[in-house]
Amino acid sequence: MNQSKPSLFTCISPALLHLYDVSNSVMVIIDVFRATSTIAAALHNGAKAVIPVDSVPKAIEIGKSIDGIAAGERDGMIAEGLQHGNSPLEYTRDFIGGRVLVLTTTNGTRLLQMALDRNADTIISGSFPNLTRVCDFLLASGKSVILGCAGWKDRFNLEDTLFAGAVIDRIGEQFTIHCDSSRMAVDLYRQQKHDLIGFAPQLTHYHRLVSRFGLIKDIEFCLTMDAAPVLPVYREGKLVGE
Amino acid sequence: MNQSKPSLFTCISPALLHLYDVSNSVMVIIDVFRATSTIAAALHNGAKAVIPVDSVPKAIEIGKSIDGIAAGERDGMIAEGLQHGNSPLEYTRDFIGGRVLVLTTTNGTRLLQMALDRNADTIISGSFPNLTRVCDFLLASGKSVILGCAGWKDRFNLEDTLFAGAVIDRIGEQFTIHCDSSRMAVDLYRQQKHDLIGFAPQLTHYHRLVSRFGLIKDIEFCLTMDAAPVLPVYREGKLVGE
Repeated sequence: MNQSKPSLFTCISPALLHLYDVSNSVMVIIDVFRATSTIAAALHNGAKAVIPVDSVPKAIEIGKSIDGIAAGERDGMIAEGLQHGNSPLEYTRDFIGGRVLVLTTTNGTRLLQMALDRNADTIISGSFPNLTRVCDFLLASGKSVILGCAGWKDRFNLEDTLFAGAVIDRIGEQFTIHCDSSRMAVDLYRQQKHDLIGFAPQLTHYHRLVSRFGLIKDIEFCLTMDAAPVLPVYREGKLVGE
Repeated sequence: MNQSKPSLFTCISPALLHLYDVSNSVMVIIDVFRATSTIAAALHNGAKAVIPVDSVPKAIEIGKSIDGIAAGERDGMIAEGLQHGNSPLEYTRDFIGGRVLVLTTTNGTRLLQMALDRNADTIISGSFPNLTRVCDFLLASGKSVILGCAGWKDRFNLEDTLFAGAVIDRIGEQFTIHCDSSRMAVDLYRQQKHDLIGFAPQLTHYHRLVSRFGLIKDIEFCLTMDAAPVLPVYREGKLVGE
């Protein structure tokens, strides 16, 4: 064990976040289907910023006040009262370039708020479309890391844990890891990495999205490595792309 | 999907138990290292009953009042004030036959109390040494199942999840499973099932037990299928062997 390496933990549900010392760590918010994939897509396509908010009325109010795009979902569907949802494919360069996206989602924006409340040192968002940028940032920062899986209403989900496993697969050796969740995540990822899209029908969330809403294209984007190579960093109420 | 099959869920931390409907289910308490392995060993070796309690003073008090064996651990060691700990190998037939074991442990007995508080329909305890008996009971009961992993101070651990995976590997097809935790558990188990003892050094708890206390024989017992083929069922404050 090399004590000079920073530590890395995987938190597999927001309901377990209190077990980790967020205040001295970079916290990676992971909500693969679809919030953090959508954030990456919007920022990569030129959005000035993404403002994560915790309610639909707040999204509408802030969207109006700054001439931004208010958007969000509840239970996988465009939230009532909004015209735009949580599909990464909605946020093309033509639509979102130069604008601000005000986004509310079921799980990801809630976990981000929890990380703020617990005084995370740094907050970034991670998804397969920006995997390499996330790994590069974590290596360069030299700080301890919490990979925070948003899950589904506090339940464990496979897709967020697979992304945590992808990060560990790439850069785990540069960290001190004494964490069964991290070991599980990287084992699962190595089992499935050669065909994530083929594995997708095993995920409960896949059925929520595909069977009910037909969002197979969204899922394919959300499982494509480095399709939106941007680093979303949270600063003063906004995620901005670096 | 066959709706006539009962459901099965895996709860990977006591801190997530509120997400599951325990009241209509058989709840399997899983604390592989070592509470539920020790319970199986004691009952298989003729203990009249195991009384799980949540504190050392209560273990001592009840132990005295019924002429039982008060035992337990805190953080992996024999708890202060007790002469007997949480090693399954302590509870030989000569020692425990015909007697009552009053046991307090860090994680397993706490989860059992939580299942009681949430009015579980039926509570049994499970471990590799009594895997087949647990599976046979779950199949025969025809009820929904919660596989409850005790974890380590609310953190996920691999060994309890591997046991949940072993149950699902054996009998999962007889249940309706829409639960990413269950899918993860069975995938992990199938990856490791051919050499659980060889995998053990990957577990954080292995290091807690072996590096600090030298309990390699305990770990081998706890990972041996059907070494103590008994079914511990909770009734009126006691686990009794069937």
